[in-house]
Amino acid sequence: MNVTIGDLTGNAAKCIDRIGRARSLGADLIVFSELSICGYIPKDMLNYESFIERCEEAVKEVAKASQGIGVLIGSPVKSGLSDGKGLYNAALFLHDGEIKAQFNKSLLPTYDIFDEYRYFEPARSVEILEFKGKRIAVTICEDLWNLDSPQMYPTTPMDELMKQKPDLMVNLSGSPFSYNHVEDRQGRMVRNAQKYDLPLIYVNQVGAHTDVLFDGGSMFITNTGVIAEELEYFEEDFEIVDVDKHEELLSHSHNFRDEDENLIHDAIVMGIRDYFGKMGFKKALIGSSGGIDSALVHALCAVALGAENVTAVMLPSKFSSEGSVKDAVQLAENLGSPYHIVPINGLVDSADSALEEMFHGMPDDVTEENIQARGRGLLLMAISNKLGVLLVNTSNKSETAVGYSTLYGDMCGGFSPIGDLYKTQVYAIARYMNRNGEVIPEAILKKEPSAELRPDQKDSDSLPEYSYLDAILMHYIEEQKGWKEIVDLGFEEEVVRKVVKMVDRNEYKRFQGSPILRISHRAFGIGRQMPLVAKYYH
Amino acid sequence: MNVTIGDLTGNAAKCIDRIGRARSLGADLIVFSELSICGYIPKDMLNYESFIERCEEAVKEVAKASQGIGVLIGSPVKSGLSDGKGLYNAALFLHDGEIKAQFNKSLLPTYDIFDEYRYFEPARSVEILEFKGKRIAVTICEDLWNLDSPQMYPTTPMDELMKQKPDLMVNLSGSPFSYNHVEDRQGRMVRNAQKYDLPLIYVNQVGAHTDVLFDGGSMFITNTGVIAEELEYFEEDFEIVDVDKHEELLSHSHNFRDEDENLIHDAIVMGIRDYFGKMGFKKALIGSSGGIDSALVHALCAVALGAENVTAVMLPSKFSSEGSVKDAVQLAENLGSPYHIVPINGLVDSADSALEEMFHGMPDDVTEENIQARGRGLLLMAISNKLGVLLVNTSNKSETAVGYSTLYGDMCGGFSPIGDLYKTQVYAIARYMNRNGEVIPEAILKKEPSAELRPDQKDSDSLPEYSYLDAILMHYIEEQKGWKEIVDLGFEEEVVRKVVKMVDRNEYKRFQGSPILRISHRAFGIGRQMPLVAKYYH
Repeated sequence: MNVTIGDLTGNAAKCIDRIGRARSLGADLIVFSELSICGYIPKDMLNYESFIERCEEAVKEVAKASQGIGVLIGSPVKSGLSDGKGLYNAALFLHDGEIKAQFNKSLLPTYDIFDEYRYFEPARSVEILEFKGKRIAVTICEDLWNLDSPQMYPTTPMDELMKQKPDLMVNLSGSPFSYNHVEDRQGRMVRNAQKYDLPLIYVNQVGAHTDVLFDGGSMFITNTGVIAEELEYFEEDFEIVDVDKHEELLSHSHNFRDEDENLIHDAIVMGIRDYFGKMGFKKALIGSSGGIDSALVHALCAVALGAENVTAVMLPSKFSSEGSVKDAVQLAENLGSPYHIVPINGLVDSADSALEEMFHGMPDDVTEENIQARGRGLLLMAISNKLGVLLVNTSNKSETAVGYSTLYGDMCGGFSPIGDLYKTQVYAIARYMNRNGEVIPEAILKKEPSAELRPDQKDSDSLPEYSYLDAILMHYIEEQKGWKEIVDLGFEEEVVRKVVKMVDRNEYKRFQGSPILRISHRAFGIGRQMPLVAKYYH
Repeated sequence: MNVTIGDLTGNAAKCIDRIGRARSLGADLIVFSELSICGYIPKDMLNYESFIERCEEAVKEVAKASQGIGVLIGSPVKSGLSDGKGLYNAALFLHDGEIKAQFNKSLLPTYDIFDEYRYFEPARSVEILEFKGKRIAVTICEDLWNLDSPQMYPTTPMDELMKQKPDLMVNLSGSPFSYNHVEDRQGRMVRNAQKYDLPLIYVNQVGAHTDVLFDGGSMFITNTGVIAEELEYFEEDFEIVDVDKHEELLSHSHNFRDEDENLIHDAIVMGIRDYFGKMGFKKALIGSSGGIDSALVHALCAVALGAENVTAVMLPSKFSSEGSVKDAVQLAENLGSPYHIVPINGLVDSADSALEEMFHGMPDDVTEENIQARGRGLLLMAISNKLGVLLVNTSNKSETAVGYSTLYGDMCGGFSPIGDLYKTQVYAIARYMNRNGEVIPEAILKKEPSAELRPDQKDSDSLPEYSYLDAILMHYIEEQKGWKEIVDLGFEEEVVRKVVKMVDRNEYKRFQGSPILRISHRAFGIGRQMPLVAKYYH
């Protein structure tokens, strides 16, 4: 189910609808995802007592719909303890109109994008759910992840639950997407089924909350570790499984993991759609430069929102090549999006005039480049304000990493759909979008990357080639290797140290950047929290 | 000691210097603050193995200086466990050139601005340090905070340590400042001394790391709970205490808690000084509007950096009142700061011209106001780039809360010194700065607040009076009350719901705001993490 953070009334209504459907199909039990009543995760809303009380009320509403059917739903619940955090991250069992049992999460992930110990107390004991002759071990997400060595937690709740002789496992999850995560998740769940020799019903959230994507992919796994049922990715889905007949089912795993481009494409499209839909926006605005980044963002927004809902604005300066506007126009025409051409020369000249006296006798430098980028930002935001359309940021991860961007200039925008894609990945996804014919003009795919902020400028004037740059960045950011370790892998010391220094020095820019759709396991944003004022080692 | 995050070489050198001084004064033991080798807290630098190894090397360097003197120093240390997080937050005891003992933190704060369970494993056992005939219970910060009911943690390490019959407590702290925190901290430490009937040496970090301020105020407390020694706030300090003669000492608590304005003033000045100093900047740039916010920021920067290092730029538009430039000039002259006047009319007209065709026939709205604010942002950032001076943001907490600000406009700036001060506090601190004669012109203190973005605009046109607004905001943000609870306190329902809605709707602006110096216990930023795409209840 794709829920909205904090939309307790709407989420409860969705649950009640699905319960009705499950009942009409003769299901005994319906399972929702982790914190399904409020969405995973409402962050500091959880600190508001009034919010917790509203969650309780919403669960009671859902419970009324549980006549004749068992329901497992996720909700924050007051712990009632005299010490510890005041809340549990709980699965509530509803039946015949009442809350009949509560199962608290034992293992609270607090790393990467997770911060659960900020809010929750770990379970102090675990118990089996007995229902319709089944002994069900109910766990919540991370509870099933403490499997491989080295284990992150000293205890494993399923080991405890096994003492109570369960014959079925159910896991309510809020497991986020990254393009290298699906295989890991499936492997772990399969190993759980095998280790405990129990079938597993695994239910994951789907949908995007600002920056974090949840990909769904709920599963039913047999006690031998066969994925007998695998639900849709990136959309809501609903399946009835017969837990006693699972041996007859064949695995039909989607094997999405073999096609990164497909996975990333679908993830970003869902991310854009949910950002707009849940914020109440219909229309996007894009500053279209004729380069590959804005072209890809334009094409992705067109898939997510409809091309007619994406307005492209070309903002040429005296340094823009002839091809820039032409290629951007071609793209808009290929897609069928409205576009406008708004030259920035007059605005730039006015800024120069205003500053002429102060800057008298001082040579040109990066200031003049930034004035162009910020002039574009000013005009785009004005159009966004006037038309009530949301400006989408077009930065990629490579340039965000090294600070090859202008704060309040090309860094403007409400959110960043490709900010977690390295430049080399930007090309790969762009080519993927042309798989059934040209959407993004070949000229855009082939031209050499340039910011076009001074005559004949090329990105390669100040950066290494992107394939080399991206490899270094991946080691430094994704793998968290130090510069010496990267040099030991065979990269040039001078280049590595320069790149690492650029990454470190630009924390201040990223601090003020827009939310970035998380695609990798180490996105800029909440998943990578670095100090701003600090001494780094290069 | 005021350390820099990650500056292992520099911090180690500082430690070695202080050790030499302590030894020359005949001290047996010198105590540093929590994570003193790397600064509290290096965030995800802790995920880099190369960083942890550098910390180890730096501690070994310090150990070499420990001939004939005991040293307690804070450092991250690899846990070496086969499960759990890989690190401890530890106090290391150095003596005669070696690391002799290690004491791990038991209670890991993970709330507000703290996120220690992201990195550290809690101690699995606690032990006494025996040194020179003393049995010392070494704890780290939060370890001594689990004192009052309801307790946040089920166990209290001092209760365990008491079984080993200590005769002295030492606590290494990284306890941040907020203007309502000092009294709480002193009270808790006094109650620890009384509860365990032991003297307490309490050593706290001082200095600012981007947004978070540490105020120092280290103490020696007798076993009867008398604060016998209280070190300086907001600056480094060094005292020798004789733990066997403490009964003779009298309390000379500074009682700063009775003077909020003094405390807040000194905190912000330290925050500005450390941001600039640790980032390697000397000079500040301020967009000076003639209003109270920019005036206060200008005056505070002048104290922190020297008035000659603060450049004020007045950027009048056709809506600026005559007094605006005059008052801002008067302020610059009172302080002795350089200033420039750069009118924005030409730039605004150019932007309007560029958009004329697109906006044809559409009425004026907030777009035109934002163009002015963003035009100012563009010019200020150009001046910042050209002169190599850091633009300081001048937003206050009231306007940041309700979104009465323009993204990429008046929200520009590298950091925000008064972004955690409500408007009513802005006036209080401004008046405090005039305590010895006029610094901030009376005209600025007396004029009605206005953004001056359209004719005769006043803040009160769209906002409640600030005293009323701030009271509602404090209940909603600081006290985390829901709108109904605030109405129950006697505020008008219509106003409360409007204000709360404005706060919620503007998460997207704050997401892209600059780092805010934390003054209160609920600052925007890491201390208050709210979802962006979400449904709130108003």
